[in-house]
Amino acid sequence: MSKTKVVIYGAGGYGGVGLVENLLLHPEVEISALVSREGAGSSYAKLYPHLKGLIDLEVENAEGFNPTNRGDFVFFSTPDGVGQTLAPTYLAAGYKIIDFSGDFRFNNPSLFKAYSAWQQGEMDHLCPQFLEQAVYGSPEWNRKAISQASIVGNPGCMAISCLLALYPAVINKACLLEHTVLNVKTGISGAGKKLNPNFHFPAADGNMFAYKIGQHQHLYEIEQHLEYWSGEKVAINFTPHVVPLTRGILSTCTLKLKPETDGKTLVQHYQECYQDEPFVDVETKGAKIELSQVRGTNLCKLSVNYIARTHSLIVNSIIDNLQKGQSGNAVQVMNAMLNFPETTGLGTIPRYP
Amino acid sequence: MSKTKVVIYGAGGYGGVGLVENLLLHPEVEISALVSREGAGSSYAKLYPHLKGLIDLEVENAEGFNPTNRGDFVFFSTPDGVGQTLAPTYLAAGYKIIDFSGDFRFNNPSLFKAYSAWQQGEMDHLCPQFLEQAVYGSPEWNRKAISQASIVGNPGCMAISCLLALYPAVINKACLLEHTVLNVKTGISGAGKKLNPNFHFPAADGNMFAYKIGQHQHLYEIEQHLEYWSGEKVAINFTPHVVPLTRGILSTCTLKLKPETDGKTLVQHYQECYQDEPFVDVETKGAKIELSQVRGTNLCKLSVNYIARTHSLIVNSIIDNLQKGQSGNAVQVMNAMLNFPETTGLGTIPRYP
Amino acid sequence: MSKTKVVIYGAGGYGGVGLVENLLLHPEVEISALVSREGAGSSYAKLYPHLKGLIDLEVENAEGFNPTNRGDFVFFSTPDGVGQTLAPTYLAAGYKIIDFSGDFRFNNPSLFKAYSAWQQGEMDHLCPQFLEQAVYGSPEWNRKAISQASIVGNPGCMAISCLLALYPAVINKACLLEHTVLNVKTGISGAGKKLNPNFHFPAADGNMFAYKIGQHQHLYEIEQHLEYWSGEKVAINFTPHVVPLTRGILSTCTLKLKPETDGKTLVQHYQECYQDEPFVDVETKGAKIELSQVRGTNLCKLSVNYIARTHSLIVNSIIDNLQKGQSGNAVQVMNAMLNFPETTGLGTIPRYP
Amino acid sequence: MSKTKVVIYGAGGYGGVGLVENLLLHPEVEISALVSREGAGSSYAKLYPHLKGLIDLEVENAEGFNPTNRGDFVFFSTPDGVGQTLAPTYLAAGYKIIDFSGDFRFNNPSLFKAYSAWQQGEMDHLCPQFLEQAVYGSPEWNRKAISQASIVGNPGCMAISCLLALYPAVINKACLLEHTVLNVKTGISGAGKKLNPNFHFPAADGNMFAYKIGQHQHLYEIEQHLEYWSGEKVAINFTPHVVPLTRGILSTCTLKLKPETDGKTLVQHYQECYQDEPFVDVETKGAKIELSQVRGTNLCKLSVNYIARTHSLIVNSIIDNLQKGQSGNAVQVMNAMLNFPETTGLGTIPRYP
Repeated sequence: MSKTKVVIYGAGGYGGVGLVENLLLHPEVEISALVSREGAGSSYAKLYPHLKGLIDLEVENAEGFNPTNRGDFVFFSTPDGVGQTLAPTYLAAGYKIIDFSGDFRFNNPSLFKAYSAWQQGEMDHLCPQFLEQAVYGSPEWNRKAISQASIVGNPGCMAISCLLALYPAVINKACLLEHTVLNVKTGISGAGKKLNPNFHFPAADGNMFAYKIGQHQHLYEIEQHLEYWSGEKVAINFTPHVVPLTRGILSTCTLKLKPETDGKTLVQHYQECYQDEPFVDVETKGAKIELSQVRGTNLCKLSVNYIARTHSLIVNSIIDNLQKGQSGNAVQVMNAMLNFPETTGLGTIPRYP
Repeated sequence: MSKTKVVIYGAGGYGGVGLVENLLLHPEVEISALVSREGAGSSYAKLYPHLKGLIDLEVENAEGFNPTNRGDFVFFSTPDGVGQTLAPTYLAAGYKIIDFSGDFRFNNPSLFKAYSAWQQGEMDHLCPQFLEQAVYGSPEWNRKAISQASIVGNPGCMAISCLLALYPAVINKACLLEHTVLNVKTGISGAGKKLNPNFHFPAADGNMFAYKIGQHQHLYEIEQHLEYWSGEKVAINFTPHVVPLTRGILSTCTLKLKPETDGKTLVQHYQECYQDEPFVDVETKGAKIELSQVRGTNLCKLSVNYIARTHSLIVNSIIDNLQKGQSGNAVQVMNAMLNFPETTGLGTIPRYP
Repeated sequence: MSKTKVVIYGAGGYGGVGLVENLLLHPEVEISALVSREGAGSSYAKLYPHLKGLIDLEVENAEGFNPTNRGDFVFFSTPDGVGQTLAPTYLAAGYKIIDFSGDFRFNNPSLFKAYSAWQQGEMDHLCPQFLEQAVYGSPEWNRKAISQASIVGNPGCMAISCLLALYPAVINKACLLEHTVLNVKTGISGAGKKLNPNFHFPAADGNMFAYKIGQHQHLYEIEQHLEYWSGEKVAINFTPHVVPLTRGILSTCTLKLKPETDGKTLVQHYQECYQDEPFVDVETKGAKIELSQVRGTNLCKLSVNYIARTHSLIVNSIIDNLQKGQSGNAVQVMNAMLNFPETTGLGTIPRYP
Repeated sequence: MSKTKVVIYGAGGYGGVGLVENLLLHPEVEISALVSREGAGSSYAKLYPHLKGLIDLEVENAEGFNPTNRGDFVFFSTPDGVGQTLAPTYLAAGYKIIDFSGDFRFNNPSLFKAYSAWQQGEMDHLCPQFLEQAVYGSPEWNRKAISQASIVGNPGCMAISCLLALYPAVINKACLLEHTVLNVKTGISGAGKKLNPNFHFPAADGNMFAYKIGQHQHLYEIEQHLEYWSGEKVAINFTPHVVPLTRGILSTCTLKLKPETDGKTLVQHYQECYQDEPFVDVETKGAKIELSQVRGTNLCKLSVNYIARTHSLIVNSIIDNLQKGQSGNAVQVMNAMLNFPETTGLGTIPRYP
C-alpha cells in the first residue's frame, strides 16, 4: 500500500520541525512538501542542521504554494488566522487537515472571537461554516469523532495539559467547578521560535514570571470543555507561568470537591478512565512525577492526590509541550484520522538524563 | 559606640553564608564567631572562596562552642530541633536570638508538633515555655513585637512569600478563606546545600516537579496566620514546586472573594497596606513582575490582579528565597530588634542580567 | 534467528541506562539481565521511571550474580578495576565483552598503571594477559580488529572526542605533535550519577571551571594513540572544563602544522578519511557546528579550520558524551563485534530544541 | 567637594546598566544623564525595573543630546564607530572619556581597520589623531598613563581576560609566543542585549559552540599587547566559545615555555606581578578557581599551573564579563583618571550560590 503523503505547512517553526522529527519515524506516511516562509528555497537540513542526512527536501515558499496533487494530508503549523484562510482550498483538494492554532478548536464563532481578543487581537472567523464539523483533537474523549473528521483543531498545549487532568473529575460531576484553580508552568519553547526580549537567554536564565494572569487565551478552550462535560457555564481561575527550561509543561489543578464526593472513589475514576489510553499514565500513590519522565515523548503523566483536610483533589499533569502538547498529539490524531493504530510512529525511547 | 557582636551558628550552610554576605555590609555589627560542623577548624574563606579577602575568621566547631562573652546576638541558621536546644543557654548568656528553623515560628507546642510531623519527623518541642515570648519575624505586621523580643522565629521562605501576598486581603476580610489556593515555585537553593539526587545538576536541569502536595510543613505557618488575622480556623490548598533555577520564589495566590467585596477597593488596600514598607513593592496595573527584579535583594514584589469574571484576586509574589526568604529578612528583623533603621545594611544594588 | 542476549553489568548508572535506551530500539538483541548494586531487587522502571512500560526487568544484585547461561554478550558499565576482575569469568563463560572503564583501553600494563594514578589511585592491572588481545573501541580505525575481538575497551568520552579530531592530521604526519593543545568542555553528566558538591544544582548553575589541568587521565589514552599513529613518543597539553549543561562535549584541538604541510590538502584529508563513516560528519567551510545538532545521537561532528595566519589547524569536535562518548559508541562496537551493520539500532531522530 | 557628574551614553544596553549599578554605589560621582535610543523619553527604572526606587532619571534621546554643561565625564557604552564620532565634541566640551568599543583600543589606525574587518565591517577610523593619546584601559600595566589620559579605550572582555593571564609571562620573556593557544568560554551576556537566534533561550539552553574560530576581533587587541611587551610581531591561536550561562568568562591560556625558562620561578613572577593589584588574585597551588567566585565583582582570578611534562604553563583566568570585562573595569579606570582610590565604589560583596 502506498504511503500517505503529508504536507507540512509552517514547517519552519517548532511545531513544524516536531512533525518532521516524528514523521521520519512513521512507517505509513511520507513527507511530500515542507512549506514555510522561513528558509524558503534552501534545504530543510540547512534550516535544521540536526536533521542533516535524515531528510532531503527543500523548503517551498508559502507564497504561491499550490497543494493540488501534492498530498493527502496537511498540517497547518501556523498562527491563528492562517488555517482558516487555507482550509477551504485544501478541503476542496481532498486533504484531511490538522490545524495547530486556535482556528478550529471552538465549535462556535463567538467563542473564537473572544479567544482571539485575548490572543493576537479580536477577529471574526473567516470560515465559520467549518467550525461545526471541526473536531477538537483529543483522542482521549473524541476518538470516534476524530476518526470521521476531515478537519481537526490540535489542542493548545496548556489546554490539553489541564483538560486531561480535569476530565475524569468533571464527567463524574465530582467538583464545585467554579472553585477550580489552574496553575501552569511552561518551558520557553512554548512561546515558539520567534525572538522575544523575555526569552533572550540572559533575560530568561534563572528567571520566572506569571503572565496573562486570568486572561490567557487557552482558558476559553478549557472552559468550553468544562461546559460540554458538565452542562454548566463556568468561569475559572487560570494562571500561566514561564520557567527557565526548554521543553515541558507542569500543570497543577486544584479542584474543590462537592461535599458528597468520595475522594477515594474519585481517584479510582481517574485510573479507570485512562487505563486503556496509550498516552496517559495515572499515578495515585504519591509516586513522584517529573518532567524528565516525559521529555521527548507523547506521554501525559498525571499524579492524582486527594487532600482530605481540604476535601480537594490536586492533580498534577506533565507533558512535553512540543509532543503531547503539539506535534506528538497531532501525529496521534492523524493516526486516528487515517485509521492507523494511534501509537504508530510514536514509540520514541526517552533519554535520561 | 561599639558594634554589636554577632555569632552565626550554622555558618556553613546557605543561610549562614547569606548572613555573612549581608552583615559584611552592615555598619553597626561585626561578626564575632562563625560556628559550624562543616569546615570547622579552617578559614571561612576556604569554605566559601568567593569571600576570600573579605572575611578573616576561622570556623569554630559547633561541638563545644561556648557562647559566653562571644557576642550579643546570635543567629541559629540550623535545622529544626537545634535552636530549641540551644536557646536557653544563649538567652541566659544575654543574647538576643533569631532562629531560622520552625522552632520558634509557632505560638503553641501542638502546632509545632504537627508541623514537625510533615517536616522531619514528629517531635515534642523541647522548650515550649519560650514559644509564647517568641515572635514571628515579619516586620510588616510584627514590627513592634519584634523590637521588644529576645527571640524571633525567622519565617519559612515559602510562608513569608505567601503571607505577604495574603495579609491585606485577610485582614480586610475580603475573601472566602477556605477556597484559597497557593501555588509556589521555588528555586533549588531553597532545599539547602545538602546533596540530594533530585538536585544533582543532570537530574534537575530542564526538570520540574511538585512535591509534598497538600502537606508541606510551611502550610502550618500560613494557616496559623490566617487564623490570627481572621479569627477563623481554616485549611487551605498549597502545592510547592521545584523549578530549575538557583534563587527565588514565585508564589501565585488565588483568592475567591466574598460576594460583597469590591475588587478595586481591595487592590487599593494592598497599596495602602504596604506603602510605607521598605521591602514590599506593590504593582497593581498589570506591570510585569519577574524574579530577576529581586534577585540578590531583600525586596518582595507583589502583583495584585482583580479578576472580574471569577470575582477573584490573583496575587503574585516574588522574593529571593535566600534574602527576603531567609538571611535578608533576618537582618531586617535584627535591625528592628536592635533599634537600627530596618534598611541598615540592606542597600544592595541588584545586578541585571 | 534468535536474538543475542545481553547482560548489562552496572545498569544503575548513566552508562547503563544509556545502553538500555539504545538496546530497546535494537532489533537483533534482547536485554537478558540488568545487574547493579543500586536498585537491586526492584524493577528497573522504578529506578528509571522514564522507562516505565518500556522494560519489565528487575535489577539483579551484582553481589553473587552468576553469568552462566544468562547471555552471550556483556557490557561492564563500571568504574576502573571492576571489569578486570570480572573479565576472566565472563570470557570463560563464552561472553564477548565491552568494558566502559579504562581497564581495557591500554595495550600495556604500565600505561594502565600511569593512567590509574591520575584517576582513582595507582593500581596494577589484575589481568594484564588480556590487554594485548583487548581492542580499543573506535570503529573508525579499529573496525577489523573489533570484529575479531572478544574484549573491547570502550573509549573515554573526552578521549574519543579528541582522537576523532586528531586522527586524520596525525596519520598524515601533518603537525608538530608536541605543540598540540586540547581544550575540552564537557557537560555534567560526564561526571556520572554520583552526588558531588561541585554538581549540586546551585553550585553548578551559571558556573564553570577547569579541572585536572594537565593531568586528566584521558590524556594517556590520547597520547597512546598519537604514538601508534606517528611512531613518536609525545606529551601534549590537555585541559578539561566543566560547563553548565547536562549532555555533550565540545573539544577544541589546536594543531601547529609542519612548515611543509599544505592546509587545504589537510582539510581534504579529513573529508576523505571520514567520508564513509556513518557517525562522523566533517564540516570544512566554516559551517557552524553546535551541540544541539548531536544531542541524543551517536554522531560526532567535526569542524575543520585551517588558520593561515598561524599555519595551524583548529578542529572542533562535538559529541553527545553519553552516546558517541559512551553507550552509543558501545552499541556501534557491539554491532561490529557481532557482524551487524554498525548503524543497527542507532537511528534515533534527534529533537530540536 | 562636589561630585563628578557622569553622562552614560548608551545607557540602554548591558554595559550601560552595569555602569548605573556600579555608580549608584560610588560616593564621589553622580549620574547626570542617561542617554540612549532605547527607552528614550521614559524613566530608566521602567527600562530596568530592578532599579525601581534606586534611580530617578529619565532616558534622554541620543539623537540631539547636547553634552554642554551636562557633566564632566562620559562613558560611551556604544558599538564600534559611535565613540569616534562623538569624541571630538565631548573632548572640546571638557569631558574625560571612557569608550567601551574598539574605537580607542588601538594605537594606530591600520590596526583598527584590520580589527573592524573582523568585527562589523572594515572601516577607516574617523579621528585617528586621537588614537595616540588614547590609553588602553588596563590599570594593571597602564595605571600612570590612565591617570593622565583624557580618553581611554575600555578593554574587550575576552581580551582583558587573556591579557591578564599572559602579561607576567610575556614581560618575563618566558614563552615561545607563536605557540600560544587561547581558548575562551564566554557567557551569553557577552553578546549583549540585542536579540539573536543563537541566544533565544531554547536555542542556547544546553547548547555550546565555538565561533569566529581564529578570527575573532579581540585577537588584535591581544596581539597588539604581545608586541608591545615582547617587541616581537606575533600571530597566535585564539578560539572563543559560547556556553550556556549568563555572566562570566573562563579563559584557558596554554603557553609553551622557552627551554631556559624555569617553571617555578615563572609562577613566582605571577604572584609578584599582581601582589599589589586590588582586582587580580593569583592561585598557584592548584586551588580551584570557578566562575561563581567572581560573579558580580570586579575581580580577575588566575590559576597558574606549570606542567612539567610538556614544559608549558597553563593559566586559567576567570572574570565576570560585565564587571572586570566591562563596567567594573571602567569604574576602576575612571577612578584612576579622577584620582580616586581605584577600589572606590567597587566593594560589592558577591552572593553565593
